[in-house]
Amino acid sequence: MSSRDGRALGIQIFGESHGPMVGVTLDGLPAGIRLDLPRIDAFLQRRAAAGSPIATGRKEEDKAHILSGLKEDCTTGYPLTALFYNKDAHSADYAFLPDNPRPGHADYPAIVRSGGHDDLRGSGHHSGRLTLPYAFAGAVAVQVLEQLGVAIASHVLSVGDVQDSPIDPVAPDLSALKDGLAHPVPTLNEDAGQKMFDAILAAKVDGDSLGGVVEVVATGLPVGLGAPWFDGMEAVLSKQFFSIPAVKGVEFGAGFAAARMLGSQYNDCYRYDGDTIRTSTNNAGGLLGGLTNGMPVIARVAFRPTPSISKAQQTVSLSQGNEQTLQVKGRHDPCVAVRGVPVVESALAIGLLEMWLQHRGDQTL
Amino acid sequence: MSSRDGRALGIQIFGESHGPMVGVTLDGLPAGIRLDLPRIDAFLQRRAAAGSPIATGRKEEDKAHILSGLKEDCTTGYPLTALFYNKDAHSADYAFLPDNPRPGHADYPAIVRSGGHDDLRGSGHHSGRLTLPYAFAGAVAVQVLEQLGVAIASHVLSVGDVQDSPIDPVAPDLSALKDGLAHPVPTLNEDAGQKMFDAILAAKVDGDSLGGVVEVVATGLPVGLGAPWFDGMEAVLSKQFFSIPAVKGVEFGAGFAAARMLGSQYNDCYRYDGDTIRTSTNNAGGLLGGLTNGMPVIARVAFRPTPSISKAQQTVSLSQGNEQTLQVKGRHDPCVAVRGVPVVESALAIGLLEMWLQHRGDQTL
Amino acid sequence: MSSRDGRALGIQIFGESHGPMVGVTLDGLPAGIRLDLPRIDAFLQRRAAAGSPIATGRKEEDKAHILSGLKEDCTTGYPLTALFYNKDAHSADYAFLPDNPRPGHADYPAIVRSGGHDDLRGSGHHSGRLTLPYAFAGAVAVQVLEQLGVAIASHVLSVGDVQDSPIDPVAPDLSALKDGLAHPVPTLNEDAGQKMFDAILAAKVDGDSLGGVVEVVATGLPVGLGAPWFDGMEAVLSKQFFSIPAVKGVEFGAGFAAARMLGSQYNDCYRYDGDTIRTSTNNAGGLLGGLTNGMPVIARVAFRPTPSISKAQQTVSLSQGNEQTLQVKGRHDPCVAVRGVPVVESALAIGLLEMWLQHRGDQTL
Amino acid sequence: MSSRDGRALGIQIFGESHGPMVGVTLDGLPAGIRLDLPRIDAFLQRRAAAGSPIATGRKEEDKAHILSGLKEDCTTGYPLTALFYNKDAHSADYAFLPDNPRPGHADYPAIVRSGGHDDLRGSGHHSGRLTLPYAFAGAVAVQVLEQLGVAIASHVLSVGDVQDSPIDPVAPDLSALKDGLAHPVPTLNEDAGQKMFDAILAAKVDGDSLGGVVEVVATGLPVGLGAPWFDGMEAVLSKQFFSIPAVKGVEFGAGFAAARMLGSQYNDCYRYDGDTIRTSTNNAGGLLGGLTNGMPVIARVAFRPTPSISKAQQTVSLSQGNEQTLQVKGRHDPCVAVRGVPVVESALAIGLLEMWLQHRGDQTL
Repeated sequence: MSSRDGRALGIQIFGESHGPMVGVTLDGLPAGIRLDLPRIDAFLQRRAAAGSPIATGRKEEDKAHILSGLKEDCTTGYPLTALFYNKDAHSADYAFLPDNPRPGHADYPAIVRSGGHDDLRGSGHHSGRLTLPYAFAGAVAVQVLEQLGVAIASHVLSVGDVQDSPIDPVAPDLSALKDGLAHPVPTLNEDAGQKMFDAILAAKVDGDSLGGVVEVVATGLPVGLGAPWFDGMEAVLSKQFFSIPAVKGVEFGAGFAAARMLGSQYNDCYRYDGDTIRTSTNNAGGLLGGLTNGMPVIARVAFRPTPSISKAQQTVSLSQGNEQTLQVKGRHDPCVAVRGVPVVESALAIGLLEMWLQHRGDQTL
Repeated sequence: MSSRDGRALGIQIFGESHGPMVGVTLDGLPAGIRLDLPRIDAFLQRRAAAGSPIATGRKEEDKAHILSGLKEDCTTGYPLTALFYNKDAHSADYAFLPDNPRPGHADYPAIVRSGGHDDLRGSGHHSGRLTLPYAFAGAVAVQVLEQLGVAIASHVLSVGDVQDSPIDPVAPDLSALKDGLAHPVPTLNEDAGQKMFDAILAAKVDGDSLGGVVEVVATGLPVGLGAPWFDGMEAVLSKQFFSIPAVKGVEFGAGFAAARMLGSQYNDCYRYDGDTIRTSTNNAGGLLGGLTNGMPVIARVAFRPTPSISKAQQTVSLSQGNEQTLQVKGRHDPCVAVRGVPVVESALAIGLLEMWLQHRGDQTL
Repeated sequence: MSSRDGRALGIQIFGESHGPMVGVTLDGLPAGIRLDLPRIDAFLQRRAAAGSPIATGRKEEDKAHILSGLKEDCTTGYPLTALFYNKDAHSADYAFLPDNPRPGHADYPAIVRSGGHDDLRGSGHHSGRLTLPYAFAGAVAVQVLEQLGVAIASHVLSVGDVQDSPIDPVAPDLSALKDGLAHPVPTLNEDAGQKMFDAILAAKVDGDSLGGVVEVVATGLPVGLGAPWFDGMEAVLSKQFFSIPAVKGVEFGAGFAAARMLGSQYNDCYRYDGDTIRTSTNNAGGLLGGLTNGMPVIARVAFRPTPSISKAQQTVSLSQGNEQTLQVKGRHDPCVAVRGVPVVESALAIGLLEMWLQHRGDQTL
Repeated sequence: MSSRDGRALGIQIFGESHGPMVGVTLDGLPAGIRLDLPRIDAFLQRRAAAGSPIATGRKEEDKAHILSGLKEDCTTGYPLTALFYNKDAHSADYAFLPDNPRPGHADYPAIVRSGGHDDLRGSGHHSGRLTLPYAFAGAVAVQVLEQLGVAIASHVLSVGDVQDSPIDPVAPDLSALKDGLAHPVPTLNEDAGQKMFDAILAAKVDGDSLGGVVEVVATGLPVGLGAPWFDGMEAVLSKQFFSIPAVKGVEFGAGFAAARMLGSQYNDCYRYDGDTIRTSTNNAGGLLGGLTNGMPVIARVAFRPTPSISKAQQTVSLSQGNEQTLQVKGRHDPCVAVRGVPVVESALAIGLLEMWLQHRGDQTL
């Protein structure tokens, strides 16, 4: 099994939830890019448990320890590795494994896959803890893209049945998209954010969990990034989005709604805005034939509810060959979509940077 | 730009819509796999224009000419290349390019990308014609998987607002999923199929087009294929699905609906079915933590309406710097989702075979 | 098994010696590069049998049929595929296979590898015939590099015990390196070339074959191409050189001679030549720490003697489990090193272009 | 720039000589492989400075700290990362950089490449220190291969003009190849070893350095590993060998000597040894057409003399644009070939394991 990806920009993730550290190596960054390390830590804080009543109780120091590839805060062009210490892991919570696979978790297939050699505590390498080094890679990618004029922002579009206002795909107001440190649920509409918070708290109290959708946007992209087929922007970006644990759906632009539209409604017509070519609508979400057309790239990522819930569930006993009831203890996040917001931004940034680096390589001479 | 993919199973696509041929090379197939060539041609026929009143008027001989990698109908293990001749291409239809990029097409970003060196006739390498060699690769992958006990089937779930019955995710009846040669729109419910046909014809008469959703399922999968993160089954499969031109949304299992569910509703509980471990529901679509759990893998792929419509549309003149009206002539498919059905099966098969080959490589010693 | 390579520049080779065609797809070329097709054919002629008394008797039309990726002789940026027809193959020559594997050939391991599903006629996909599409890729790479100011040339350094003068590593005179169409054995010293010719003819008459060494040089390289470790220029280039059938040794700069030197003798000291930094000697062969330093890149590639000889040899019978004598008939090239000259240039060009394209991608912003 | 490689077995190296740590991630190891950690440390000790008078004076704790991918000494199948602390680095030794690039080192092209953003102290990521994590990967690969019946051994074939006896390519006696802990220069012939030691000490006293050749062998390989072309064993292995800093030449079997042979001398004829097919000679070094034929794989790797010597050398001043004299202080290894012995074994093991894992994936069904 493999946790590496990328052609121009290599990314290798490693570590287990209950091991000493988790980490990531970025390989192929251009040299001379200045990184703002405090901003990286702040980005990671958006993901952290942070004591919010609607998150997990696990307290971790999520500070990046950068081992290589950086000199005086500038990339050297050589592999950049960051480590994160795991300090607050409770192994005792996982005594029922490997005999009783938890519903909704990777336990069962992982046990079969590794012939029992897997470290399943806290879900091992399947843990959401690995979104931390991934988000570090994303934070770096976000900063590189900023230096290239690309801005990325996101919000929680929905939690359960509670809906926020959608991002305007033609002229998104990025200043309105809060970074989430002030508001536990980052939304455009504060009222919706409060309703989502209440819904999550209610689910938590009830020993249950909720799903949600994160909507993300990138502006300032050049025209012509991507390719048809396998290096199409949707193909590359969806691979990143679906790499995030708990993601079960991805759409771009009008997405699944496009399937209900007529071509005359869907096609985005061209117009001149000064010297710039833009489209009047943006059902394509800024992507045509796998290539960016200069309009904002918009995507929606659907998260299923957190698998770990306190309610009793039916499972099996692998050793006894019968069904059993399981009640999962421990401290679990009732709505991973909320903590997933910077992770979704990371996925978008990593995919865009990969294609931007590839594009540099094959520009006309 | 690149049209190659795969780690264990390499796939390289090449060719332009108005060039002499399109083709594909498969690299990494095990030796000794017997292929049924007439069945491959039949699979490709499901994709063909085939004179259906709801498809394009372009008539092509879609027969695969296999150049290498096959001996007496068995794979040799060496690269397998198939070519397809393009015979019925009308170049005159594209005289307005490169000056007037068509809304909804890749024209504009492709022109910018290639500095005008692109062959845009019939959309060049962006054409849906390239789904033919891709479907050949899929047909091969389908047959290899069959020999491993894996079955794949699909139907059109919706066209516009017309809905077919969904596939039963727990116990799909594959015999009910017709292969489409008898029915121009392959559906579970014949009535829905007829309504879809009527809707597409109406759109065609009106010089317009319609979007649609294809639902696909795979059964007989072993437990433990895939990985967390970048080689997760959803990540690998979505990359294939989104590589198909016109795809704008992908979901697995409950998909976007999962975002509205509680964990207690979503989690699939385990039970024994004789000696086999199964789940009582299948909201996960057979995938947990990126790994197969043995239940059917179900996915839904949303196609936007065909970009080429006969109605007048607003575009720009790149040379004159102003807006102009464009009316696209030619013979165009009003609903690519229908012809996309075997292409979606191909994507599923190619992704599954890639991961199955990887899995063989890293099984416990 | 796989015949694809490359990260920025993908290259996929396919075809069998006795199949209908062999070919190659290049994936990732920048758009807008003008190719001189007659010069490509001329480059391929250097490799051809061409009726020389010292080569194989097989007559082939080695003209490239380019299917895609080229418009008005300029690259489009999309995959470029070239095919070559195989017309003059004699299958009857190979009746002893698969029972009697030929010494020195891939027969035995290939039979075991593919469980007998291999097409072994003419060595199938192992044939030197595949150096034709590979040389096409090389010819394209050579032309791209020329447009970037890089020149490549080569000669036969030795055949058996006959030695030519070596290339001057500090200031190579490329005009002195003939392209070989006029001289059957391209050497710096005509006398040496004639002696090599005689030695090869003598071996042929004797039903035997000879090995040889090709020396190749590239000038005009920028400083800083490559990387330490796996993307080091030596690592990338040697992978290409050793991909050529029959190659058993590769060295750069002083190569194996460096192992007998002192550091004070080996180190190339820096000096200014006007504004340009050069070294006084060039034992490094233009490569330091895997990076180009601006000096000419020099390499030597050792070819073993052609495995197919007319003399009787001992082999085994796989079916009978005993030893047998085998006498290989057919028309075989007595010294593959000579025909390997443009193939070695191709390997150097492909590796340099790969790293140049990667380098563009990761230059400082 | 990139320091990652591999398709079935990913290897990512990171770290700088004067940074806090160096490390490696192995990605794609099968689960359930038991590793002997003390033996890994012993393997790494063969590479260490270890106070030998002929080595560098730098004292490091070269103990591997394994962060992930291992449970109770068995691989989990998830990424395995090992770190090594750098403790004894003297930064003051490098004050002349970046102004005076050292002859023979990567300084000059690295400075140009990274626009001055490179961490050049101790050669940064170009340092031989990175052979430590690489050798860890090699040690793991060696143990996996042992469990598959493959044995690897090596010796120093030559240092300067001093020659050891070569390994018998047909029936190598691996017990005779000492692992080097008892003898500072591991040779078959003790007398030669002593002469080499004396030559190295003399060079050290003289402020100079010496080159050398390492010869390595692998036995117990199955028939049919590898492929023609880019995944040929020579291509894959040479890429690993040339990734090692200071390597300038690689040959397999008879190598460059094959270029001077007749086919009738070179071809290895087949015979039966009981039920096993073997060859009477082994000029091919166990490799035919890129595939293993079951005979021992033999290779020779040429190292240039250590670039760092105490003698004064001419270089340039990048800031002043003139030539200057440079005298490198510090503690440097006079013959990297000796410490390179386990690194060469590592390269062979990593390449073999990569191809073995690929082979499992594409075996006939």
